[in-house]
Amino acid sequence: MVQTNSVVGDLDGNVERIRSVLDQVDGCDLAVFPEMTVAGYPLEDLVLKPGFVTDCRSAVEVVAGSSGSCALVIGFPDGAPKGSASGGVQNAAAVCHEGGLVGVYHKRALPNYDVFDEARHFVSGVEPLQLYEIGGIRVGFVVCEDLWVADGPVGGLVEGGAELLVAINGSPFHRGMLAEREAVVVATAASSGVPVVYVNLVGGQDELVFDGGSMVADPAGQIIARAPRFDEAVVIVDIDVTHVPVAETGLPVIGVSDKVDRPDHVVATPLDPLDPLAELYGALVTATRDYVTKSGFTDICLGLSGGIDSALVATIAADALGPDHVHGVLMPSRYSSGHSVSDATELATTLGIDHRTIHIEDAHASLVGLLEGSLGTVPTGPTDENLQARIRGVLLMAHANSLGWLVLTTGNKSESAVGYSTLYGDTAGAFAVIKDIYKLTVYELARWRNAQIDGPVIPEGIISKPPSAELRPDQRDDQSLPPYEVLDPMLEAYIEGDLTRAELVADGFDGEMVDRITQLVDAAEFKRRQTPPGTRVSRKGFGRDRRLPVVNRYSG
Amino acid sequence: MVQTNSVVGDLDGNVERIRSVLDQVDGCDLAVFPEMTVAGYPLEDLVLKPGFVTDCRSAVEVVAGSSGSCALVIGFPDGAPKGSASGGVQNAAAVCHEGGLVGVYHKRALPNYDVFDEARHFVSGVEPLQLYEIGGIRVGFVVCEDLWVADGPVGGLVEGGAELLVAINGSPFHRGMLAEREAVVVATAASSGVPVVYVNLVGGQDELVFDGGSMVADPAGQIIARAPRFDEAVVIVDIDVTHVPVAETGLPVIGVSDKVDRPDHVVATPLDPLDPLAELYGALVTATRDYVTKSGFTDICLGLSGGIDSALVATIAADALGPDHVHGVLMPSRYSSGHSVSDATELATTLGIDHRTIHIEDAHASLVGLLEGSLGTVPTGPTDENLQARIRGVLLMAHANSLGWLVLTTGNKSESAVGYSTLYGDTAGAFAVIKDIYKLTVYELARWRNAQIDGPVIPEGIISKPPSAELRPDQRDDQSLPPYEVLDPMLEAYIEGDLTRAELVADGFDGEMVDRITQLVDAAEFKRRQTPPGTRVSRKGFGRDRRLPVVNRYSG
Repeated sequence: MVQTNSVVGDLDGNVERIRSVLDQVDGCDLAVFPEMTVAGYPLEDLVLKPGFVTDCRSAVEVVAGSSGSCALVIGFPDGAPKGSASGGVQNAAAVCHEGGLVGVYHKRALPNYDVFDEARHFVSGVEPLQLYEIGGIRVGFVVCEDLWVADGPVGGLVEGGAELLVAINGSPFHRGMLAEREAVVVATAASSGVPVVYVNLVGGQDELVFDGGSMVADPAGQIIARAPRFDEAVVIVDIDVTHVPVAETGLPVIGVSDKVDRPDHVVATPLDPLDPLAELYGALVTATRDYVTKSGFTDICLGLSGGIDSALVATIAADALGPDHVHGVLMPSRYSSGHSVSDATELATTLGIDHRTIHIEDAHASLVGLLEGSLGTVPTGPTDENLQARIRGVLLMAHANSLGWLVLTTGNKSESAVGYSTLYGDTAGAFAVIKDIYKLTVYELARWRNAQIDGPVIPEGIISKPPSAELRPDQRDDQSLPPYEVLDPMLEAYIEGDLTRAELVADGFDGEMVDRITQLVDAAEFKRRQTPPGTRVSRKGFGRDRRLPVVNRYSG
Repeated sequence: MVQTNSVVGDLDGNVERIRSVLDQVDGCDLAVFPEMTVAGYPLEDLVLKPGFVTDCRSAVEVVAGSSGSCALVIGFPDGAPKGSASGGVQNAAAVCHEGGLVGVYHKRALPNYDVFDEARHFVSGVEPLQLYEIGGIRVGFVVCEDLWVADGPVGGLVEGGAELLVAINGSPFHRGMLAEREAVVVATAASSGVPVVYVNLVGGQDELVFDGGSMVADPAGQIIARAPRFDEAVVIVDIDVTHVPVAETGLPVIGVSDKVDRPDHVVATPLDPLDPLAELYGALVTATRDYVTKSGFTDICLGLSGGIDSALVATIAADALGPDHVHGVLMPSRYSSGHSVSDATELATTLGIDHRTIHIEDAHASLVGLLEGSLGTVPTGPTDENLQARIRGVLLMAHANSLGWLVLTTGNKSESAVGYSTLYGDTAGAFAVIKDIYKLTVYELARWRNAQIDGPVIPEGIISKPPSAELRPDQRDDQSLPPYEVLDPMLEAYIEGDLTRAELVADGFDGEMVDRITQLVDAAEFKRRQTPPGTRVSRKGFGRDRRLPVVNRYSG
């Protein structure tokens, strides 16, 4: 199982990534790579570019040319773009061996829900099924969704004589997803009576993070090998395969390689599963690292307010990129409390990151003066609160522009949901690290991180003080929002659960609060449409998962 | 033909819109409304909310209850959300008559390309076809895409005895689309031998604008009635229908209403088609008006730089909302030329819009001072240029926040393509009016608008001077970009044409320039992802049409 971190569009780099592990799989019968290995995933509308698909085919031929006695299975887009005369692109698995392309399987089940748009980009495979005899074993290949659908190709492959099933996957992380995946892999192995090899992509791509966690299940329903989460890995495992006699109704079999005697049985080292917060933290670190580095950057900056959100994001960034590559900017205003500055400074010191302080008072006064001249009055209320947040956004972006950094934003999902943010202010930046993390989970992650061996890193004062935006005197989140213990579950029921207001009330939420909060969520759609991408870790993040109109009067 | 401007999610309003025209169609046999009449279109993930679909069904029942002897055909989402036990939502047409729901047709062909995602939201209709006898005529109904596909339901309806075909549509505008639509409608009528009634939605919805232009084609291939573009309308037309004997293989027919003698034959007034620039200008005005008003706003503000882009947007806004609702803000810096201020002032005066001037020098100096303290040097180059643009963005947003206005942005497609804009600066705002208009077309539209009866409105100086961002001394667009006569066609070939660099060079574009410009386009994807929605008027706009990854190393 070769769990790689392919980069979208980096065909040369992805080919090199494949070739660089060939030494390690030398002597194996089969090396299985993830879905879209040579292209990266998801490709989105790159697939509609005919020249891109042609280039991917060439990349596959380079890989095939490098293959030896170990058969390689790699993913790629195959065909001509949809709508063209030749019928469309397919999501394909290529089988390479001894310098050549032995065969290609085309994904049949195309997911077109949640974050997936495969019906836009691909056409389903329709060719008759076939098997490949590799190391003397008849192997059936499928791609990702094929394994999840009731009427997929698995039944046909097994009835047709497959002795081993191999699935290549680009299955993104969300909380609880590994257990769902394992259940499907185990059930497939148990019901079909043949072992299942499941190889998943790893790494971040825009809003998605792929968690790896490749595995092998045996027909008894045991997971006999696991690859690490969130890291590239080559995991070698010998699989005991029960020989199945060739049936009369057998599928055509492409001969690839004969059985090789293997006196030494390789048993993969079992890995402890990650606890849910470790897994979640790992997802955020991986996604942040990959967004920054795959974009060609090394360093980030962020505003340090002294609050919990920016503290957690700074910590994630330091873990992802190294503290030397993280730059904190403290930007106190007349409303910032003394402890905010001292808490932020303490955090920066503990993390060992560069930090600087810019008092925004001068710029604030200057802009207020200009506005007073135009508006005839000094701006107050939300106008003035937004002004402070936007000055900070301008200063951070100027640092990024001047020093070649990316800006990370620090808003959480609770805030993003109700629109408690300033567009072009605290939402300004390249990547929104915790945009899919509700506030209560922000606290859980901070406490979890502090409990690690090198902790605590986040000062207790930051965790224990009441949350505040500090944009007016003595402001506190709970002056305008219900406590997060009430708010977060309501938001989850409305967003992830797609409940209407009436259904929320029926579920026991207070009617007046439901009206107010759902109105806030609906009205903030225009803001979310202009915020940066950020890691999706829930079943329904804001972004590719939840595509609502901006102009939308439905209030049900 | 009842061409309505439904509002997404406004079920009560849409029902009222339908009921308000019932007086006008009294005495007709059939009133045809657009696709998704009661719900608005496109609904995007609203369709995934079970309660919403239930509410739409109730709205249809209210309309049905209001129906009389004139049968009504209205569009709505029918069923239960996809993935649920009951199988999914369908894009439906309801036939209502004499207080009841007589029948429902479910769209079979679901577009899932360009701006359409119907495979995400709907399942295809699979029920056997049927006809409705209305006014003694056997009528077959289809929905939009059904008419465009070779293996759609039209053949079955006609073979089964349809004497009239009726299509309800939500077909968005792009340049040249009306001719494509007419060709399909005419070809369907001619090849099937029965008249075709085509009713289209009108109005703006987020990035899309629906242009109406409903029509009737007779079997001779003539368009015998046309509804206006971009306006709501009720167009009454008598259609001569040739009686077709019932075939042995006829479809089931639901009896709705009998033939009524009509001594007076109503002939729709023929409308002159719009010239291409009038049509395009109409699309921009409609989209702007609807985005602002459907969002619940009345007034907009925008920065007036003295350049052609902001001049055109101000003019469109004045035409869309009335000059009293448009507020121009001049924000000169040390680099603004004298003619910029005088040109912008002359424009505002001619348009009759409110305008004010804010010199940004103080705020600029103040922010430069803060940055110098942190960076150890005065910001220069792009950092300083962006700083000026962002100060303007902050000032405009403060006006919008304080006075309850929306900000319109003024960037064109050429700029958006190559990233010649400042994120959170000139891209900050609610709606990007001309984001899908290349610079050369900006000039064409300005000249066209000046040639109208109330023109000229845009000062000639604005049209004739060389374009400049005025963010450094003597800056001009052609210092860093090729002339727009070269740039725009290359961008169109790369963006709309999906050509690779090699293909562009093969088409005669200069290789070095291709490399530079395509790199700029690719690198600006992160900016476009955070810019506001704006009207799509081309075959491939930035937005729903062109969904590229942000992290993307493909440079082919």
